[in-house]
Amino acid sequence: MDRVVEELVAALPEGAVVSDPDVVEGYRFDRASTVTPGRPRAVVRATCTADVQAVLRIASQHRVPVVPRGAGTGLSGGAAAVDGAITLSTDRMRAVDVDPAAMVAVVQPGALNAEVKAAAAEHGLWYPPDPSSYEICSIGGNLATNAGGLCCVRQGVTTDYVLGIEVVLADGRAVRLGGRTIKDVAGYDLKRLFVGSEGTLGVITEATLRLRPAPPPLATIVATFDDVVDAGRAVTAIMGQLRPATLELMDAAAVAAVEAVKPMGLAAVGALLLAQCDVGSADVAAVVAACESAGAAYVAATEDADEGELLLGARRMAIPCVERLGAVLIEDVGVPIPRIPDLVAAVEQVAARTQTRIPVIGHAGDGNFHPLVTFDPADADAAARAQVAFDEVMRAALALGGTITGEHGVGSLKAAHLHDQLGPDVLDLSRRVKAALDPDGILNPGKWI
Amino acid sequence: MDRVVEELVAALPEGAVVSDPDVVEGYRFDRASTVTPGRPRAVVRATCTADVQAVLRIASQHRVPVVPRGAGTGLSGGAAAVDGAITLSTDRMRAVDVDPAAMVAVVQPGALNAEVKAAAAEHGLWYPPDPSSYEICSIGGNLATNAGGLCCVRQGVTTDYVLGIEVVLADGRAVRLGGRTIKDVAGYDLKRLFVGSEGTLGVITEATLRLRPAPPPLATIVATFDDVVDAGRAVTAIMGQLRPATLELMDAAAVAAVEAVKPMGLAAVGALLLAQCDVGSADVAAVVAACESAGAAYVAATEDADEGELLLGARRMAIPCVERLGAVLIEDVGVPIPRIPDLVAAVEQVAARTQTRIPVIGHAGDGNFHPLVTFDPADADAAARAQVAFDEVMRAALALGGTITGEHGVGSLKAAHLHDQLGPDVLDLSRRVKAALDPDGILNPGKWI
Ligand SMILES: Cc1cc2nc3c(=O)[nH]c(=O)nc-3n(C[C@H](O)[C@H](O)[C@H](O)COP(=O)(O)OP(=O)(O)OC[C@H]3O[C@@H](n4cnc5c(N)ncnc54)[C@H](O)[C@@H]3O)c2cc1C
Ligand SMILES: Cc1cc2nc3c(=O)[nH]c(=O)nc-3n(C[C@H](O)[C@H](O)[C@H](O)COP(=O)(O)OP(=O)(O)OC[C@H]3O[C@@H](n4cnc5c(N)ncnc54)[C@H](O)[C@@H]3O)c2cc1C
Repeated sequence: MDRVVEELVAALPEGAVVSDPDVVEGYRFDRASTVTPGRPRAVVRATCTADVQAVLRIASQHRVPVVPRGAGTGLSGGAAAVDGAITLSTDRMRAVDVDPAAMVAVVQPGALNAEVKAAAAEHGLWYPPDPSSYEICSIGGNLATNAGGLCCVRQGVTTDYVLGIEVVLADGRAVRLGGRTIKDVAGYDLKRLFVGSEGTLGVITEATLRLRPAPPPLATIVATFDDVVDAGRAVTAIMGQLRPATLELMDAAAVAAVEAVKPMGLAAVGALLLAQCDVGSADVAAVVAACESAGAAYVAATEDADEGELLLGARRMAIPCVERLGAVLIEDVGVPIPRIPDLVAAVEQVAARTQTRIPVIGHAGDGNFHPLVTFDPADADAAARAQVAFDEVMRAALALGGTITGEHGVGSLKAAHLHDQLGPDVLDLSRRVKAALDPDGILNPGKWI
Repeated sequence: MDRVVEELVAALPEGAVVSDPDVVEGYRFDRASTVTPGRPRAVVRATCTADVQAVLRIASQHRVPVVPRGAGTGLSGGAAAVDGAITLSTDRMRAVDVDPAAMVAVVQPGALNAEVKAAAAEHGLWYPPDPSSYEICSIGGNLATNAGGLCCVRQGVTTDYVLGIEVVLADGRAVRLGGRTIKDVAGYDLKRLFVGSEGTLGVITEATLRLRPAPPPLATIVATFDDVVDAGRAVTAIMGQLRPATLELMDAAAVAAVEAVKPMGLAAVGALLLAQCDVGSADVAAVVAACESAGAAYVAATEDADEGELLLGARRMAIPCVERLGAVLIEDVGVPIPRIPDLVAAVEQVAARTQTRIPVIGHAGDGNFHPLVTFDPADADAAARAQVAFDEVMRAALALGGTITGEHGVGSLKAAHLHDQLGPDVLDLSRRVKAALDPDGILNPGKWI
């Protein structure tokens, strides 16, 4: 046993340091299937903030890298193990404490998003952020990637719900940033610097999350289009008038992939839009009218909550369904709303040029799309073409004034493209901030920064 | 003329460097009347990003401090001049460019908030953030303080509308942070580090702001209470059920101060709540019921937009009206919603103990309050007692788990109390970030950091 592992074992509760190779294996990968992770020196399953502090003190003393890890559902290789590093898992830190009067939940980072939602619901309250992976991803991972989801078009993303965090710095100190108040401008917004920092600045050990009253009942509108560009025009028209609770797009290939698993009679459509609005509001008719004006082939609205949930569930299943077609490189590009038709057209061209299937799904109301670059992993040539397609879609998004990642993070998968997006000066600025907070560079090294 | 001023004159367009002492005088103060500003070496009225870059290059070469300044309406002394520094005003950088399809406005920092609102309205769009000073404050100042206002309880604060900024760093480099997409997690959220940094990290020279569709018509509910604690209970009840568009509180003294200037027949009330909800929604009745259950003496609702604007206008006038009573130290404390009654009670005790009048107004729905510590500036003893009261109110807010500033910023007025709120570790973290971005400490020195 090496010296560092010995010190970890001595400092941490029994069983916290995992050495069984089979168990370690389960902590090496995240859900970015094309990323090959390294071999960690040890996996630590922390039980409390003090454990996390102990790990970071030992790591910084020996300059050993630390990879923070939540539930490992990330799609960018952010939690992928690094050779010789300590993988620091929060999967045992699961407490959720709701204060209904203050409308906040104080949570440990390993709690699943669904666990926070459930705890809030016990008090008639709601934690809105809803990545499609909400049943399997952790709040710590959500914070570290600033996760989005289906409700974000109206409700905002994870960072909008974070009142305060406790974070353990590279040197092992624990600090509290923000607090319990809704508005707070005392000092720099450091809290929001850690949110979305993908484990490169500190380990989040607690979060005070804002809750909302339970949402009003929602009506669901489904519209199909022969042409995906028409669906894009419907999105621009809707967003110019109102703020739907959901506005999701699936192209023909994505719909077909879901139909193959869960038939809903939607096989032969060019594109599908799913929108939700408050029951009884004028927005429902406005969305229907916008879809019709944009040339929808079929539009229907339902006030039935179960039917609505069924349709949204189908949308949430899209990534796993497409994964049945082969290996998948999952894009996460974003563009300004009016450029949606251009992005979709660009993806079609890339698919044709690289002879690669790229079903498209997206949080259309936010301009955030997941072209799913599929390929047969046994076919080296197809894999190479898929990689070209993956790169070209990101370049297309940047050319349209967009971003390479709207919610999944950069991780290791998109690191090369971040430089194209940020440019040398912003990267220099980022590195200066990183160096100020983690001078030895032990936190999640070799990823994007 | 000193060497630095000579270089400024040579580098900048004619008339940009102001030396006329009468004109300079107008750029020394902000609206924190108890802060005594220093004497600037020069005032520069920049016309473009390149001017700002030239100023910062010269300043960093000579290690001369720079005080960024918008419209000078700040309430914390943030833009107050510093001895020997260059005051860098953006009041000539006023361009506003609306892209209605993308629903964004690209604005220079000196544009007034009201000018951005007006430009958006020309396209049927809306820029929500609405500090009560919106007709006289600049967007740059709003960003630098992360300004709030009356609509924030539903619409959020300034940072929620910032898609991208251009910022000139201490060394004169201009960088672009963020962009035009709604969701973007590529790299650190540096944009939000600069928002709210009160001119201590860089000078914001352009912002891409998100616009919304015009809001639906609002109904306005007025409720009066004999006891301000009952009003606080009504706030908790309302926020537990729904999300009003506005929820403002005024205590007896604040109502009386406005009545003295603009009589509305509301003289003898213990407290006043003003709420707004969508016309025709069930929320109107729910707010009325919550006020009645909490013991309101009188409740009325109107769907008349002009009447609603009149009532909101009265609320916005509160600070200027109270300023007629004497000098004012304006608090900006925040507490969690359920602690509102405790805060109001604490302010009453401080007022009694220090024999000082402290009318209270507040963005109740966000738990953000402005106790207005009034005193006769000619009476040294009263001024000293007011200072004690000012300090004690902030301490009371911190004891209730709150913040010393919800939206006005720390500036120089609250610098001493920031240490109590953040503690040594967070201050150390803040200083490390400051040193990473402004190594010579030339940006707005001697304020809070
Ligand atoms: C089927 C499927 C659907 C998905 N849908 C969405 C979606 O709609 N929206 C969306 O945003 N994402 C989605 N994701 C991606 C993923 O679920 C999210 O990124 C999620 O936030 C990751 O959480 P996790 O706990 O699994 O984090 P991990 O994968 O374990 O880690 C993610 C990153 O966060 C860091 N990290 C984790 N915990 C901490 C901590 N406590 N402190 C500091 N850093 C930490 C890691 O180092 C890593 O960089 C989906 C994934 C799948 C598999
Ligand atoms: C009657 C009245 C009512 C008010 N009501 C509210 C309210 O409801 N909500 C609220 O939040 N505030 C309110 N304020 C406070 C004030 O109007 C806001 O803080 C406003 O945002 C300041 O804008 P300004 O242009 O006047 O900034 P200034 O006072 O000129 O500067 C404020 C700070 O921002 C920095 N700064 C300015 N421009 C830049 C830039 N381009 N780059 C970097 N730093 C910069 C300055 O250095 C300073 O630290 C009120 C003020 C008054 C007088």
